[in-house]
Formats: sequence, structure tokens, C-alpha cells
Amino acid sequence: MRATTIHGTRDIRLSEVPNPSLRRDTDAIVRVVAGCICGSDLWPYRGENPITVGNTIGHECIGEVVEIGASVRDIAIGDFVVVPFDHCDNTCPHCRVGMQSVCENLGFTVSGQGEFVLVNQADGTLVKVPGVPDSGLYPSLLALSDVMPTGWHAAASARVKPGDTVVVVGDGAVGLCGVLAAAQLGAERIIALSRHEPRQRIATAFGATHVVAERGKQAADAVAELTDGVGADAVLECVGTDESMRTALKVARPGATVGYVGVPHGVQLPVNAMFSRNVGIAGGMAPVRAYLPDLLQRVLSGAIDPGRVFDLSLPLEQVAEGYAAMDERRAIKVMLTP
Amino acid sequence: MRATTIHGTRDIRLSEVPNPSLRRDTDAIVRVVAGCICGSDLWPYRGENPITVGNTIGHECIGEVVEIGASVRDIAIGDFVVVPFDHCDNTCPHCRVGMQSVCENLGFTVSGQGEFVLVNQADGTLVKVPGVPDSGLYPSLLALSDVMPTGWHAAASARVKPGDTVVVVGDGAVGLCGVLAAAQLGAERIIALSRHEPRQRIATAFGATHVVAERGKQAADAVAELTDGVGADAVLECVGTDESMRTALKVARPGATVGYVGVPHGVQLPVNAMFSRNVGIAGGMAPVRAYLPDLLQRVLSGAIDPGRVFDLSLPLEQVAEGYAAMDERRAIKVMLTP
Repeated sequence: MRATTIHGTRDIRLSEVPNPSLRRDTDAIVRVVAGCICGSDLWPYRGENPITVGNTIGHECIGEVVEIGASVRDIAIGDFVVVPFDHCDNTCPHCRVGMQSVCENLGFTVSGQGEFVLVNQADGTLVKVPGVPDSGLYPSLLALSDVMPTGWHAAASARVKPGDTVVVVGDGAVGLCGVLAAAQLGAERIIALSRHEPRQRIATAFGATHVVAERGKQAADAVAELTDGVGADAVLECVGTDESMRTALKVARPGATVGYVGVPHGVQLPVNAMFSRNVGIAGGMAPVRAYLPDLLQRVLSGAIDPGRVFDLSLPLEQVAEGYAAMDERRAIKVMLTP
Repeated sequence: MRATTIHGTRDIRLSEVPNPSLRRDTDAIVRVVAGCICGSDLWPYRGENPITVGNTIGHECIGEVVEIGASVRDIAIGDFVVVPFDHCDNTCPHCRVGMQSVCENLGFTVSGQGEFVLVNQADGTLVKVPGVPDSGLYPSLLALSDVMPTGWHAAASARVKPGDTVVVVGDGAVGLCGVLAAAQLGAERIIALSRHEPRQRIATAFGATHVVAERGKQAADAVAELTDGVGADAVLECVGTDESMRTALKVARPGATVGYVGVPHGVQLPVNAMFSRNVGIAGGMAPVRAYLPDLLQRVLSGAIDPGRVFDLSLPLEQVAEGYAAMDERRAIKVMLTP
């Protein structure tokens, strides 16, 4: 099949690779209808994460089930499914408390920017979309494989509750989905930290009531001004750098929690400052499967349209251009169709 | 008045110092009926925290109000009161959400191991004990000025809920009060990490269902064994060292929160491990005033008897021996009577 492979810093190619095949009788193979590029794919793209030359890349997709293992019961060939980037059995002790991202049988989508993907634990992982969805829904369904549940996890980890003032640090697709999640959870004021006009527009459409374009100390000052010096009831950290985490901790009011979902890169948590202000952190890799049934209903009912984060759609052949567009911030998030 | 002063490493003296006097019309002066030595006093005693030579020390006490400022309304001369170690106005935005330890008018008891203390924000800080309590109640009332609310804050920050399996790291007075708090909050299994027999006995009396004498990796292995490899639903970190924090994070199940209340000394939070396991932390200095009315009722009704952590009572003159006894672990916590 054709799939995206990574070969070095800013060296992304569409290659011919072997089709994935069932390895266990709980597996399924899904034909990718739409995949996409994740902000986290830019870490290896930029040479900031180690890579294995020639490996496939891409962990988000939706598609049609084309093959199932002998013990798969709840998913059938022909089903249209959302594929959570993190695969889980949905029955282990961690899954049972909503921590599917630490499943005892954890797996990952590894060729989502390709034609087919292997799904481990198909019954536990996949969520079926009723009927055959209209292609106009593809972007929002695709967002459910990672960014929307990840933004939701930030909000849930930060314990956003009705009436809260919430700050969202990061205006990538996950941060924007975090704004949408905070709004759905009843936040009264949502302050989005963003200095890119197209992203500010989506943040506002998703429910941000205020946009702060400053960074670092200036951003913290602006939030202090907006909150009468008190700080935010909940903070979503959707970047993963030391600077963004420090900003997130600074704008949180005492007793608040920073929900963080960006894979930490060089983050040093200032434990004494956290202690003295009683500001906690919670989060990690999102348990997509935990949130997916609810989020799917919200998409199908029209309550949320997270697909708006896709501002560029390219045929799979142009995947390299998709990476460049995101790297250079010409695009927020790129959808790829095989 | 006579008060305890610190002069260097392991150099504690009872000295003659000026009586405290009212500085603001919201202040009060309390005559100390009983004070005590805190585990955190051992940091400067051992030379691990900077000191100012000759300063008074001691932040826990109960006593009788002997003087009040002109604007004090809710507290009267003659009242028997518990003095939270952290003073607060109980009206600022932080106090109103239960974060009195980050009050905009924060103050501290600084001569609790002496005859009199100055209390800032008397109306916000002090909680009156009805009538004249029997001296048999002094230890439990005294525990309410710091260790019991601090243990409670660990449990509240860790979000202990009925039915939980809870691990308590640290068998000092705060850790033991954490066991008691977890039991009051309905924990089903409470695993106390303790290797000192007298402390194990109190932990068990306070509600610990299991005692683990191992430390570090061995302790984590023992907890894993007890929890079928899953980990604890909530963890209380009541020490403040890097080793104890790492143990606390290790024994927490994915999705759990470590509630920490020991002032961090050399703690380096392993953010990537926390992220990959979705284990959060919350806590800090305890907002004593937030918990005090409820805890006082529990003491007066006999539901809790946190005073059991005092296993040595000395006249104030022997304060130096009290420090030595705690430093050498001959005593868990020492009560001092002027």
C-alpha cells in the first residue's frame, strides 16, 4: 500500500510499504477514508524526537473495516469507524476507570497517513458510526480520533465546571478543541492565548470569550487583569513546552488544576511554586475511547463541529506539502485523503 | 515572655523575648495553653533550612484570647480558641474558594512554642471552642492547628472517596492524620507506609488496614502486590522529599492524584513519567481554616482523636529535649505546656 514514511528532519515521503495484516484474533484492518497530520508529528519532523528511518507515521484516521480477527464480536466488516489513536481492550482495570490510554493491552495506529491501518483490540478500540456518514462529516469525525478527545481530556483533567473562568494555553488544533470542550462543559469565560488571527477566529467560534495575544509574563499579566488578580479556575495546557507550562501554572488561581495534554518536551515543573500556590497538574495521553461515544453523539447531533480545525485538505500524494504547511504555520491542521 | 528561639543547627533555647503586641485593629493576642513541635521545625533544627539567629519558632497552639484589636467582632477576650498556623481574613477571593493558605492577608503564628502569640486577622483565623474544654481534649484540639488539617488537605487534594484504596507515604504526625482523614472520607483500604512500630500502631488505630514497612522500589512492589498490580486510587504524600514523592507517584494508579502536603525539599517531579501514566499531583500548604469548623465538630463528637499523635508531653522549659526526641525519632510529636 501507499503510506507516509519519515526519513529524517523535514524528510517526509509517500512510499510503497507492505499492507498491514492481522497479528492476533482481536485485531482488525481498517481502510483509511481520511487521515491527518498531528501537531505531535512535527516533533520528529523537526528532528526533536528520535526516528527510525523509513518507518510509517500518522496516528489519526477514520475508515471502513475490511478485515477482522476470529474473536472480534462487536465490529463487522463494512462498518464505518472512528479509530482512536490509542488502542485499548476497554476491559482491563485501567480502562474500567476511564484510563484507556494506560490500557494493559495498549496499542497505537502507526500508518494513519496511509491506505490501511492495523487496529489492536478492535472490539475495545473502535467506535462505529451509524450508517454511512456524509463526507461533509469526515473532518469532525476525523477530529474524534485524537485532537477533540485530547482537548476534552485537558478540560476534564483541569476539572472545568459550569461557570468557570478557563484559560487555554496553545492555539493548535488541540488547544482549539480544548476551547470547544470548556464551552461544552459550561465554562462562562474562556480566555484563549493565541496570536495567530486565523486561530483566534476559530477559538472565538468554538466559544472563547477573550483572546490574549501576549506570551509568557505578559500573558499572565493580561489574565490577571481579566480576573481581577485572582487567576483562572481551570487551565488547559495544550502545547508541552516549558514556557507554556510555566504560563499555565502562573495563570491558575490557587486551588486550580492545570490539565495538560501536550507531550512534555523539556518541561521542568516548579514544584515549590506549585506548592506555595496550591496549584496542581493532571493529565497525560488522552484515553480517547473513554470520551468517544459521547463526543460522537455531540458531532452527529451538530452540538460540536471540531472538524473546523482542518483548514487544509490534500490528497495523500501531497503529504510532504501538508507537513511543510503545518511546520510553517500556514495551516492549522491538514486532512489527507488516500 | 518566655519563648523558644533557634540559634543554629540543633541549638534550641527557651529565651526571654518581648511580648507580642497588637499591630492592626484586626489582630488578637492569645495566651498559649498548649503548643507543640512540628516535623517541619526539624528542617531548620537540622540546618536544612536557613534561619535568623535568635528568632522565635513554633506555629501550632491553642489558648485563650487575652487581647483583641478594635475591629475584631467575632472573637472576644476569654474565648478558648484553636489557632490555625496560617492566618487568613476568610473573606478574600482565595479564602472564599477554600484556599485560605493563599489568603491575600496571609500571616503565620511565629511564637507558638512560647507564652503568647500574635494572631493576624483574628476574626478570619480563629475558631472558638465552645465553653472551657477539658484538658484531656487539649492534644486533639492542638492537632487541629496544623497536623490534622494538613493530613486532611492531603486526602482532600488526592480526592479520596468512599471505597477507595489509599496509600499514605510518611508516618509522621501528618501522615498518621492523613490515615485518619482517609478513613473519615470512606476509604475502604488504607495502606500506611511505615517501618516504626509505635507509628504503625497509631496508623492501625487511625484506620490503616495494611502496613508496608518497605521503602522505595520495595514499597512500590508491595503496594502493587496488594492492589493486583493496579495501584492506589489516591495517594497522600506527607513527607516532602524526592524519594517519598517518587514512591507516591509510583504507587498511584493511572488517573489518580497524589495529594502532597510536605514542603518539597529537593523534589524533582518526573513529568514524563507522570504524563505517561496520567498521574497528577495537587496540594500545598493546608488551608487550615477551611477544614477547622468541621474537624472541630469531629473532635468534640469523639469521631476523631488526632491527639494520639502526641506521645510525649513536656513543660516548655524542656523544649530542647522535645526537639532532640523528635529528631532522634524517640517521639512522634511533642506537646509543650508553658
